[in-house]
Amino acid sequence: MKTSDLLVRGAFLCVGLFATAARAQVGYVPTFNADGTVTMKFQAPNATKVQVVPMLKPNGLYKTDIDMTKGADGVWTATFKPDRPGFHYYQINLDGLAVIDPGASLYWGLFKLQPGLDVPDPKLDFYTLKDVPHGTIRYQLYNSKVTGKTRRATVYTPPGYDKSTERYPVLYLQHGASEDETSWTTQGKVNFIMDNLLAEKKAVPMIVVMDYGYATPPGEPVVPTTPEGVRGSGGRGGRNPTSNGNPFELVIVNELIPTIDREFRTLADREHRAMAGLSMGGQESLQIVSTHMDLFASMGLFHPGGGGAFNVATSYGNVWANAEDVNKKMKLIFIASGTLDSLYNQNKGIHTAMDAAGIKNVWYETEEAHEWQPWRKDLHEMAPLLFVDKK
Amino acid sequence: MKTSDLLVRGAFLCVGLFATAARAQVGYVPTFNADGTVTMKFQAPNATKVQVVPMLKPNGLYKTDIDMTKGADGVWTATFKPDRPGFHYYQINLDGLAVIDPGASLYWGLFKLQPGLDVPDPKLDFYTLKDVPHGTIRYQLYNSKVTGKTRRATVYTPPGYDKSTERYPVLYLQHGASEDETSWTTQGKVNFIMDNLLAEKKAVPMIVVMDYGYATPPGEPVVPTTPEGVRGSGGRGGRNPTSNGNPFELVIVNELIPTIDREFRTLADREHRAMAGLSMGGQESLQIVSTHMDLFASMGLFHPGGGGAFNVATSYGNVWANAEDVNKKMKLIFIASGTLDSLYNQNKGIHTAMDAAGIKNVWYETEEAHEWQPWRKDLHEMAPLLFVDKK
Repeated sequence: MKTSDLLVRGAFLCVGLFATAARAQVGYVPTFNADGTVTMKFQAPNATKVQVVPMLKPNGLYKTDIDMTKGADGVWTATFKPDRPGFHYYQINLDGLAVIDPGASLYWGLFKLQPGLDVPDPKLDFYTLKDVPHGTIRYQLYNSKVTGKTRRATVYTPPGYDKSTERYPVLYLQHGASEDETSWTTQGKVNFIMDNLLAEKKAVPMIVVMDYGYATPPGEPVVPTTPEGVRGSGGRGGRNPTSNGNPFELVIVNELIPTIDREFRTLADREHRAMAGLSMGGQESLQIVSTHMDLFASMGLFHPGGGGAFNVATSYGNVWANAEDVNKKMKLIFIASGTLDSLYNQNKGIHTAMDAAGIKNVWYETEEAHEWQPWRKDLHEMAPLLFVDKK
Repeated sequence: MKTSDLLVRGAFLCVGLFATAARAQVGYVPTFNADGTVTMKFQAPNATKVQVVPMLKPNGLYKTDIDMTKGADGVWTATFKPDRPGFHYYQINLDGLAVIDPGASLYWGLFKLQPGLDVPDPKLDFYTLKDVPHGTIRYQLYNSKVTGKTRRATVYTPPGYDKSTERYPVLYLQHGASEDETSWTTQGKVNFIMDNLLAEKKAVPMIVVMDYGYATPPGEPVVPTTPEGVRGSGGRGGRNPTSNGNPFELVIVNELIPTIDREFRTLADREHRAMAGLSMGGQESLQIVSTHMDLFASMGLFHPGGGGAFNVATSYGNVWANAEDVNKKMKLIFIASGTLDSLYNQNKGIHTAMDAAGIKNVWYETEEAHEWQPWRKDLHEMAPLLFVDKK
């Protein structure tokens, strides 16, 4: 065992079955082995059953729960070959109850800090940190009258932005349900994906803006919430927007876009503004672009969820009904899903409906489920198609 | 109970004593009551003893461990009046073992995500979010040959930076042991403190750079560590620098300062560069400024720890031995400590030694212990004294 695999992080966590005076639990960082397996450990001498539980069975980290084996030292171990590379949420179940190992990496998802395992893909490095020029991640605070709060957006500016006087197109890029404005950087690796594409001159330099996908008017209950300061100043939770004129749409259209166009050197017209998102964020993108084609000429839907079946004739009024009109207005419609995603048929239905109606669109499918690895791929596939008149 | 106080965050955490099929624990966000008390709750029907344990007894959140009382519903409750306002690390002990409530706010400290409670001070608002122009927090990646890693610095740029062509002085500001380059924003509220001072024209607009206070050369074991992606790209852990030529000093002097002077519009001379820090970061500041007065003309030591007694004649060679020479070179020496801090005498010793030797310095003391509330106050007190020729 490498020294770095073993952490003693002081009195911490999740050792409820040891009703002893010991206050520290040894934490174990999962280790990736040369043969493609991963080894996870958990200290629980008094437990009867400990399992690694993938959050997206059968198509996430592993198809089933994985039984750990107890060692003489009270440390449970499991070595298994992940079913697929990429980022996976998981938990450890200790006698049937979810606990966290102190060595686990935690990511904001499922409205909490959730353990996640990012299994490297030996065949893919488009989302890894490389020795190329790096853009900057920055946090933009802005006042929101819609929510009565100061909100926080994450903004990626491309390498050279600060030295340049140029104006840039903007991609608004949204996370999925229960995640937040940091998810595209921590889980999604948006900055590495963009840095690497730009280093290879495969995409146009652009600003990427990632907002918090929930918004709640003052006085309405916000569940769940996390106090300001931990996760920035945006406040947590709020309504999942589904209908026109919802608070999140008003935040984006009336508050965030004007803020970004004021604070950054943007090309502030519809031809140089796109909106895309994954899952709930894909649905938000479809709803907001549908009702604001005056603001956006490009749209990306990555495994969009939550909006029901798409109908060219009736969805969002009649904005999609006239293919000729849509084809004139929209420069890019990018739709992606995964063959292992339960939303696959519904997602592909948007593409086939548009195709049948003669609306130009790009369909991209992966052999993936409803998680971050395909969303990284979706961004990597879509970004080179955006704002191509700027090339 | 307000709806927002009660969180059901799914199967999560720390409920090892309930060896049942139930997988979800109800999480409780601590609530501040009108009478100045705080109410904390923890669901644990099978526990024998549950306590709120302040991490800095007797001078932190509360002087002793606080027994929680079990309700008929299996939820334990404690209502108590915090001994003092400000940010405090704590934990919940369940039958003597440290656990986390799913409703807790977690902060990177003690080399892990640790529960923290920020008790408002009704008499102080200098560190709260106000409706004033906001600066920007951004993350600067940079290559480090010293560590063989890409490191990440947090950078605060003042309101108006992006619209201006002006050059700005720079304060390098370090966190304490076991924390990281995000601590001054999340625990310290550096951006709100600076925004508010600038709005009142009490300080000169400056860039504030916060780096990760550990650095380890390639090949040396790094304990503890957290995988890249969760906490940025800096890597975690490393040696606590104490001697000249240590890796952290080399990172700051040879790598970070040139990066910041290249990437930002800085006034890149010693008169417009300061270094300050708290606890371990204070000791780092003393060591680095002592050995690099060619780079820094201002220094802030907030409850500095780890360096032993300061001796004007012998510490850091003889750089402090000639008061006249030091007084010519150094524009500001700011030393702060708290009367409840165990380092108080040692910290005040630096001030009295300098005073006795005729070295000009500013001493600032608070009735506080070794935690964030005084460090916020220290920054608020020191910042107006920095770079005053720019006023």
